Amino acid sequence: MTMEKGMSSGEGLPSRASQASAAKVTAKELEAKQPCKEKRGGFVLVHAGAGYHSESKAKEYKHVCKRACQKAIEKLQAGAPATDAVTAALVELEDSPFTNAGMGSNLNLLGEIECDASIMDGQSLNFGAVGALSGIKNPVSVANRLLREGQKGKLSAGRIPPCFLVGEGAYRWAVDHGIPSCPPSIMTTRFSLAAFKRNKRKLELAERVETDFIQLKKRRQSSAKVKQHLGQCMGCSADLVHCENDTGTLDTVGAVVVDHEGNVAAAVSSGGLALKHPGRVGQAALYGCGCWAENTGAHSPYSTAVSTSGSPFLASEDGVLGGVIVLRSCRCSSEPDSSQDKQTLLVEFLWSHTTESMCVGYMSAQDGKAKTHISRLPPGAVAGQSVAIEGGVCRLESPVN
Amino acid sequence: MTMEKGMSSGEGLPSRASQASAAKVTAKELEAKQPCKEKRGGFVLVHAGAGYHSESKAKEYKHVCKRACQKAIEKLQAGAPATDAVTAALVELEDSPFTNAGMGSNLNLLGEIECDASIMDGQSLNFGAVGALSGIKNPVSVANRLLREGQKGKLSAGRIPPCFLVGEGAYRWAVDHGIPSCPPSIMTTRFSLAAFKRNKRKLELAERVETDFIQLKKRRQSSAKVKQHLGQCMGCSADLVHCENDTGTLDTVGAVVVDHEGNVAAAVSSGGLALKHPGRVGQAALYGCGCWAENTGAHSPYSTAVSTSGSPFLASEDGVLGGVIVLRSCRCSSEPDSSQDKQTLLVEFLWSHTTESMCVGYMSAQDGKAKTHISRLPPGAVAGQSVAIEGGVCRLESPVN
Repeated sequence: MTMEKGMSSGEGLPSRASQASAAKVTAKELEAKQPCKEKRGGFVLVHAGAGYHSESKAKEYKHVCKRACQKAIEKLQAGAPATDAVTAALVELEDSPFTNAGMGSNLNLLGEIECDASIMDGQSLNFGAVGALSGIKNPVSVANRLLREGQKGKLSAGRIPPCFLVGEGAYRWAVDHGIPSCPPSIMTTRFSLAAFKRNKRKLELAERVETDFIQLKKRRQSSAKVKQHLGQCMGCSADLVHCENDTGTLDTVGAVVVDHEGNVAAAVSSGGLALKHPGRVGQAALYGCGCWAENTGAHSPYSTAVSTSGSPFLASEDGVLGGVIVLRSCRCSSEPDSSQDKQTLLVEFLWSHTTESMCVGYMSAQDGKAKTHISRLPPGAVAGQSVAIEGGVCRLESPVN
Repeated sequence: MTMEKGMSSGEGLPSRASQASAAKVTAKELEAKQPCKEKRGGFVLVHAGAGYHSESKAKEYKHVCKRACQKAIEKLQAGAPATDAVTAALVELEDSPFTNAGMGSNLNLLGEIECDASIMDGQSLNFGAVGALSGIKNPVSVANRLLREGQKGKLSAGRIPPCFLVGEGAYRWAVDHGIPSCPPSIMTTRFSLAAFKRNKRKLELAERVETDFIQLKKRRQSSAKVKQHLGQCMGCSADLVHCENDTGTLDTVGAVVVDHEGNVAAAVSSGGLALKHPGRVGQAALYGCGCWAENTGAHSPYSTAVSTSGSPFLASEDGVLGGVIVLRSCRCSSEPDSSQDKQTLLVEFLWSHTTESMCVGYMSAQDGKAKTHISRLPPGAVAGQSVAIEGGVCRLESPVN
């Protein structure tokens, strides 16, 4: 596998790799050429969904990834914790009407938006999450606030603060904590509404087909005829009725961050499946499923942050469709010729997906702007059966505290 | 550590063990004396909460554990799958007004019952869960129904069935699937209402103390005086304000089952914390947190089922309070003198807790009645800092299919 040449090597796209079995990442390091002196450093990697990105939409997705990276780096440079940086990236991704998160999320069976989001802090291992949350523009902000409130210790009367809130209760908590509500009419885009109406028509068609089949069965026609009819129905409906959204069944956005001190954070946000049952909560809200962040400790020299897309619950599916972004970092000894007051943070990062494509962006505080890239399976590779893995390495230098 | 002598050795209590570090379980096997011939076999282990069981309440808890075991074994003997057996045990535990699950659950800040429950099938690895569910007497039944519906494959129009539903959406789904609703007045017991009122008074007191402190601060009194007052407030409130329920802060009931074919299932159900924020979902509803079940496979000769109580999110607490029940089983070669049409299932089981006590029950289809036991930390051991581990082994024989 050819690896991306690094953070400062121009806009050149990483080579792609695809294999059915696990692939080894043999990273090629590249030293950062402009170590940051004044501002605080750090690195962010984001994705705007693993799914199918048409060439026509590619520009939009790259743009939002670029903005998300910039927001996170601005936070890091201002000295904000990794959790606030990762939240800033997610807010930008949620605010895009093209992603299935926050604004423009898939609509559920009742035509409502219900969002899932979670965040994890690698330093404290604290976690915050919301599920099936309506009426809040940025679900990840509520997750981050839950995390922060949780870090303050117990509530009055020794009560343990919540870290995972759902539905109406989550909405109430958010509003009580000063997070403004947002009317559904603003969060629903004309794209998401059009997709909802199209999906509802497909659903009605599919259910009519099923009803016809039950009617047929009731009339006790010959088993052969029933089977023949069923085959026809299923054959004609297979292409028609699979629910989708306008962005090509993209699901979940995510980000991973490491700050200049080596603290990591990860976050994930999703509008969930199109026409899902109200109250359905997906992996983006679930502890240990949607994201993970863990600073270096006695058991590992690496700090690690992961954000996933796709579902571990789909084990029975023919192909598992999903994507993941990962970073790990460790302190390494400075170059012999570097001054004593520097410490170097080595950051390895990768993205991987079994979907047709995945749009990612990444940036270090030493970069002038974010790099973005639409990773695709190679021609001929079958989504759900092949995996693409790409990544890179960068070196961050920052003053010793 | 001395292990329990087995399933058929009378009512003798297992010896207790307590150590601050991980303890090894060196099990002593015992052969079942009355292998079941007609009915199908299996084994169940349940718990009614890890917390503090007063001697006066011990009888109640033992009774409900005994009934829960009997219900599960009846299901297994009737040929029901392990998931239905584990559900039957949980329904019995939920129906007890003495457990913090289903009927008699802790009330939240608004005086409402909101339940979490989940179930996992070791054969399919399918999972079903509900969170913050109100108005349904047996939350585990909804979780089991979600699991079963999920096993039927996709919904119309290719939609993926939900496996985790919360709040109002979960309630609607349950009612739409024929599970009857239950008015709050029936699920709230006089015990849970009395505890709620007491906790509310404690909360009001605690918040008045905090308000006094803020007032003091505003008056810009000397830092020393503020600290002195705070110390007094905290000192006096520490014992007064910690929320509890009438059963001694018990949390979560659970069960693990293995059927005569070696299929395992696990389930867990909880009313959650007293005075929790509405919409709070705890680990009992969370994939990979509240329960796990996994049949033997290429990677392991053992089928394993686990159900937990207590919270992994409480890492920052001084002591981690929790409990767990575990079983694992594997096929082993029959005795040389046994007939060829038998296969033997070796079942190892244990319970462990860091709380003062834990009430468990267990039974195999070969037993006439369930064994129950209140496991306690040894005198002098500090809850949250010591761990008790006890368990046993039994051998199940059943006809080869």
